[in-house]
Amino acid sequence: MPSTREPYCLLPDGASDVLTLTDPLPLDSGETLSGVQVAYRTWGQLNAAKSNAIMICHALTADQFAVEDHPVTGKPGWWQHLVGPGKLIDTDRYFVICSNVLGGCMGTTGPSSINPATGKPYGLSLPVITLGDMVRAQARLVDHLGIDRLLAVIGGSMGGMQVLQWAADYPDRVIAAAPIATASRHTPQNIAFHEVGRQAVMADPAWADGDYYETGIRPEKGLAVARMAAHITYLSENSLNRKFGRNLQERDKVGFSFDADFQVESYLRYQGRSFVDRFDANSYLYITRAMDYFDLARGTTLADTYRACKARFLLASFTTDWLYPTVESRHIVRALHAGGADVSFVEIESDKGHDAFLLDEPEFFDVLGGWLKSVAAEQGV
Amino acid sequence: MPSTREPYCLLPDGASDVLTLTDPLPLDSGETLSGVQVAYRTWGQLNAAKSNAIMICHALTADQFAVEDHPVTGKPGWWQHLVGPGKLIDTDRYFVICSNVLGGCMGTTGPSSINPATGKPYGLSLPVITLGDMVRAQARLVDHLGIDRLLAVIGGSMGGMQVLQWAADYPDRVIAAAPIATASRHTPQNIAFHEVGRQAVMADPAWADGDYYETGIRPEKGLAVARMAAHITYLSENSLNRKFGRNLQERDKVGFSFDADFQVESYLRYQGRSFVDRFDANSYLYITRAMDYFDLARGTTLADTYRACKARFLLASFTTDWLYPTVESRHIVRALHAGGADVSFVEIESDKGHDAFLLDEPEFFDVLGGWLKSVAAEQGV
Repeated sequence: MPSTREPYCLLPDGASDVLTLTDPLPLDSGETLSGVQVAYRTWGQLNAAKSNAIMICHALTADQFAVEDHPVTGKPGWWQHLVGPGKLIDTDRYFVICSNVLGGCMGTTGPSSINPATGKPYGLSLPVITLGDMVRAQARLVDHLGIDRLLAVIGGSMGGMQVLQWAADYPDRVIAAAPIATASRHTPQNIAFHEVGRQAVMADPAWADGDYYETGIRPEKGLAVARMAAHITYLSENSLNRKFGRNLQERDKVGFSFDADFQVESYLRYQGRSFVDRFDANSYLYITRAMDYFDLARGTTLADTYRACKARFLLASFTTDWLYPTVESRHIVRALHAGGADVSFVEIESDKGHDAFLLDEPEFFDVLGGWLKSVAAEQGV
Repeated sequence: MPSTREPYCLLPDGASDVLTLTDPLPLDSGETLSGVQVAYRTWGQLNAAKSNAIMICHALTADQFAVEDHPVTGKPGWWQHLVGPGKLIDTDRYFVICSNVLGGCMGTTGPSSINPATGKPYGLSLPVITLGDMVRAQARLVDHLGIDRLLAVIGGSMGGMQVLQWAADYPDRVIAAAPIATASRHTPQNIAFHEVGRQAVMADPAWADGDYYETGIRPEKGLAVARMAAHITYLSENSLNRKFGRNLQERDKVGFSFDADFQVESYLRYQGRSFVDRFDANSYLYITRAMDYFDLARGTTLADTYRACKARFLLASFTTDWLYPTVESRHIVRALHAGGADVSFVEIESDKGHDAFLLDEPEFFDVLGGWLKSVAAEQGV
């Protein structure tokens, strides 16, 4: 008998551990979600004292496959160069956890999941979720793994937002927190780019008000346009100049047509096309919405948000990141200082734009590695 | 009998002068276009010496209605505050010309025009055009008006590109040139944003390979998404923060839905929606393509391009313009200096982003006004 998950879930069977939460999950919207599944991967061994657990949090379009090759795309895990035996986040020493966020499409409950109450995919009937909801689901996973306190929570971009949310919501469960290339709130420019992406998806007739799972036709064109627009914000002007300039694609003259003449066009089209094979359009709507709602100041001040938090912080930004520029990290650093927290901050010189946090940045590795060793030593791990 | 132009042309009958070129227009692609129409407006009187003519050039989505209220939208002309009797570009003193660019949709030949050879709209059968082609058509209009030399050519953004093209292609016909908030070539980031817009249009099934004029259904959703993406690049982060911040739309709490919660979303959606009423989707493809092809260095150097040009130049950039930032103007200034040209350059402090060139910027007005007076005095106008 075919699995009911079959046509909707992009995750191949058995490619991930999946926890089904026994209790309903309360959401920031006031709604409650039953039968929530959290898909996750772990690497290394939890020590007897349960003091060596590190949670790493993924960005908007990534997932729990931080280390091994991706089961859908076959590409290397997004932090494969940072996490593993003998690596900076050393799985011979630490127990590392990464879970697919709530709203995602790699096994954790999201709009493409089957609603247990109806036996059909949620689509837009899934309540709109928040970063707080994502982290609440992660905390249930940490409970399930028998871990009281996390040695560190580490992540970049939306992963960094989850780190900030962990430290705000679970101040006693986080010993150290490293939010990288991130912000404590979405700016109007951030919201504007996401809104363009959402409108691109919703403009695709195949989207069908989110009810496309059973038609077999997915809103791939709209999602590809959304991805293309977002992708520009991940790269710096410098890196585009260095990588592509005005170089032409396979021709020494422009073609006087609407084909991809320039290499940068061809590159962007590829980014759009390949994205739709591994991502669900409704998940893109839900997760971008959660990011736009993200604002840790919560009507008071960011300093107040962190007054109860005794975690050690490392913040890092990249000079050419114009999505979450250094000014956003400085804003967080000032608030943490005001609350008396232990904060390190470094702005890394890089021409790679926002994506630098995923790439080969030796200065960043040195800083993160040194900080983590110091945290571990302090905790006797 | 209904006019064959009726369903395709957005320009109301009689709202513009229209010149039909008697000779075919050669294009940079190698093709030739017959029966080209150039829709234009003029203000003021050409003097007996024909020495007081100023050409102003419009940006990507603007048109010849620089001064009077727009015949489709009813909104004020885009440089109404700069051009008119007693104004900075004084129509009591100068004869001012503005024409809709080739490829446009306000009466000049573009993809929505009827191909005289077939009696049907061109659609994508119109050859791909360039900034050089646009300016060549303008030069024919200037010929028709009996003008040998233009006192000044002035424009911002793509208008500035036309100014640069005029000075490069017709060095003896341009006494003074003011390219504002512009660049001498499209960077890969510029191309990338345009490509997102084009893909958004082309992803709309109503686009129908450009053949939508006779269906009565236009690719409005795709074009609206394209406009939204582009609009973000016209505004600075500062102006978005000042205008919208994270302010919510008609609610004191987020709605936990995909409606426009934030004011910036509602604003962008409005920009997209209203744009489609006044602009043709295929024109958007053709004109963005022309801009992406724009590169005045032409395989040699920009300095070489301008070696024959004796025009006086004024360049102005705006501090928060990240579409065509100051570095692009400086690049042009250096090249002009290398060719020995008479160049003034000013970077205007403004938080309004690229759109500053269309807005109330007193420092810019002072600079442009002073420069134009000096040019006119030098020429005895």
